[in-house]
Amino acid sequence: MPDVIPDDSVGIVEPQKIEFSEPLKLQCGRTLEQYHLMVETYGELNENCSNAVLICHALSGNHHVAGYHSMEDKKPGWWDSAIGPGKAIDTNKFFVIGLNNLGGCHGSSGPNQINPETGKPYGPDFPIVTVNDWVESQARLADYFGIEQFAAIIGGSLGGMQALQWSINYPDRLRHCMVIAAAPKLSAQNIAFNEVARQAISQDSQFYNGHYYEKDEVPKVGLMLARMLGHITYLSDDGMRNKFGRELRSGQISYDFTPQFEIESYLRYQGERFSTAFDANTYLLMTKALDYFDPAADADGNLSGILEKAKAKFMVISFTTDWRFSPERSQEIVDALVEADRQVSYAEIEAAHGHDAFLIPIPRYLDVFSAYMQQVEADTKAVFFGGNA
Amino acid sequence: MPDVIPDDSVGIVEPQKIEFSEPLKLQCGRTLEQYHLMVETYGELNENCSNAVLICHALSGNHHVAGYHSMEDKKPGWWDSAIGPGKAIDTNKFFVIGLNNLGGCHGSSGPNQINPETGKPYGPDFPIVTVNDWVESQARLADYFGIEQFAAIIGGSLGGMQALQWSINYPDRLRHCMVIAAAPKLSAQNIAFNEVARQAISQDSQFYNGHYYEKDEVPKVGLMLARMLGHITYLSDDGMRNKFGRELRSGQISYDFTPQFEIESYLRYQGERFSTAFDANTYLLMTKALDYFDPAADADGNLSGILEKAKAKFMVISFTTDWRFSPERSQEIVDALVEADRQVSYAEIEAAHGHDAFLIPIPRYLDVFSAYMQQVEADTKAVFFGGNA
Repeated sequence: MPDVIPDDSVGIVEPQKIEFSEPLKLQCGRTLEQYHLMVETYGELNENCSNAVLICHALSGNHHVAGYHSMEDKKPGWWDSAIGPGKAIDTNKFFVIGLNNLGGCHGSSGPNQINPETGKPYGPDFPIVTVNDWVESQARLADYFGIEQFAAIIGGSLGGMQALQWSINYPDRLRHCMVIAAAPKLSAQNIAFNEVARQAISQDSQFYNGHYYEKDEVPKVGLMLARMLGHITYLSDDGMRNKFGRELRSGQISYDFTPQFEIESYLRYQGERFSTAFDANTYLLMTKALDYFDPAADADGNLSGILEKAKAKFMVISFTTDWRFSPERSQEIVDALVEADRQVSYAEIEAAHGHDAFLIPIPRYLDVFSAYMQQVEADTKAVFFGGNA
Repeated sequence: MPDVIPDDSVGIVEPQKIEFSEPLKLQCGRTLEQYHLMVETYGELNENCSNAVLICHALSGNHHVAGYHSMEDKKPGWWDSAIGPGKAIDTNKFFVIGLNNLGGCHGSSGPNQINPETGKPYGPDFPIVTVNDWVESQARLADYFGIEQFAAIIGGSLGGMQALQWSINYPDRLRHCMVIAAAPKLSAQNIAFNEVARQAISQDSQFYNGHYYEKDEVPKVGLMLARMLGHITYLSDDGMRNKFGRELRSGQISYDFTPQFEIESYLRYQGERFSTAFDANTYLLMTKALDYFDPAADADGNLSGILEKAKAKFMVISFTTDWRFSPERSQEIVDALVEADRQVSYAEIEAAHGHDAFLIPIPRYLDVFSAYMQQVEADTKAVFFGGNA
């Protein structure tokens, strides 16, 4: 609900739905005969299509990365702090693409969309999609725009995993790869949290094995629990302490099961809001994509070996209090890149916000980000004047 | 199911139910007019009742601390590794008391027991109980046995909190206080995990506001989720990695929602087993007791000030990979005790097992434990020969 659109905003933006009719063979073995992606773009694609930046979203993200859909919008896109005229990803210089991934619930082909073969929502019949599948669908999206090579592919968390996979699957199609708050694969603990969230959803009595679209219900409780749990892993213990401490809502203990501490109300509120805004089947798919991500799996776990394929320059960023994907996990990626003799920069940003930090406009983070994007811009100009990084 | 009872076991033990008819005023303002506690004891109480050790249990523990109930028992009591003839808590020397706390679900007055006033299970009408209430009920239990002063009060996790509260509430009634893997109060993150567990249970469609005893159902899913989540916080990331890594159950990915990774099966198994063995209302009460524990609350958060009351000698133990109650949290207790000029020993045990370590027979842990218990024994002998520590 901006009274006036800020000068450094991309302004009012409109999503577009792009149809793809060439069948897409998925890693699970199934094929999507046709599909569509919801996409937003900001800035202008230059003449030789060299200034394109792809933004890959995380678990609950989507194509609405920056700007507003209308003057009534309460909030801008999820990464508005990083994208706009004069911002880290400067839309005066770059053509930025955001999309909702396959399996998402914000308009791209996914469980809540109509399956053209049945005329009914895909529901649980939507196939399991992987990071590899997303990269493939994003490559076709690049083709659609006539983009041979991205100036940069950028993502945080699960988005960073897509950027990393891009560098392996399509080494010639990106000059820079920015992997933020990610990991080369999930740990057992990461998988464990995902599994609790999946059980919360799939065992909700209103889940109906994923066929809740036909009912007038959604598995609200399961989604709420999944989101509450997610939030705990997105925040740091320190961050929670700073923000909520043990503050009592009413100033005194009531000895009952109403929310007593600020943190309880916060989580319930976040969980309830999410439970009506997100799709349960999509949540299941996204967590599976996370679990299965393991680019080195086919190379006996040799990540540096597989990264020798990559040609991009890398920027890896982590945050000190992130315990979902800790700095050590980012360093695994950096170490593998160094061992593979790739060009890599690394920054560990001091931040109390935990995993969420990658979405937050922390000054030093944005400074590092902006500085790196100047290198991306320089390499883009080199292409424009006939070179090729 | 021991073929033969091991020599260092307390052997076959029998719980006893002890009735208390003096009304107990609780911290929440309500009064239990009468109540009973399930208790086990091991070893012999000496003539001057100076060799008694009280074991306080954690969230899901109970009175069955050591030994077997029958030759058919698959497992001994929950802390059998530490209690028995020649073990750290040597039952040849000490008289050991284990109890199920008020509000528990293993036979003491609690939600699943009959409310004598109504003839029906208490259910959700059982009052909120706090660590202070437990200390009070345990003091009456000591009176019942004629124990004026415990040789030691010992507990891990929530049990350690009870031991700490004892040292404040009844400074003259314990000579040693052993606080293991505990914290002086919960952090916002700790409370957050508890709140997700409570929501999982209370929003389960089979919870019926806690009145499920009258139905032929229990909130299995909620309890399962609570336990799965609990297990994640009991194990360390490292411990999980060592134990489960990313091992696939069947050796290959099936691209569906069946359990793929070992950690998923483990958590589901643990969760399901717990969901039929534990009471949902008790789980809610226990987590509330944790949330509310804050012995310094009445002293404006001045823990060392409140601990000046204590007269016991303290042993504080933490475990390196415990992230539920990390070594830093134990050090807060140690620092407060030092500031209060109390006698305190502290050991941080190297262990990969996370919070669960306090239940595991880690050699160095048991060595430290045994060594400290020798001091407890020496002080006990001093009492026996007429002194009083």
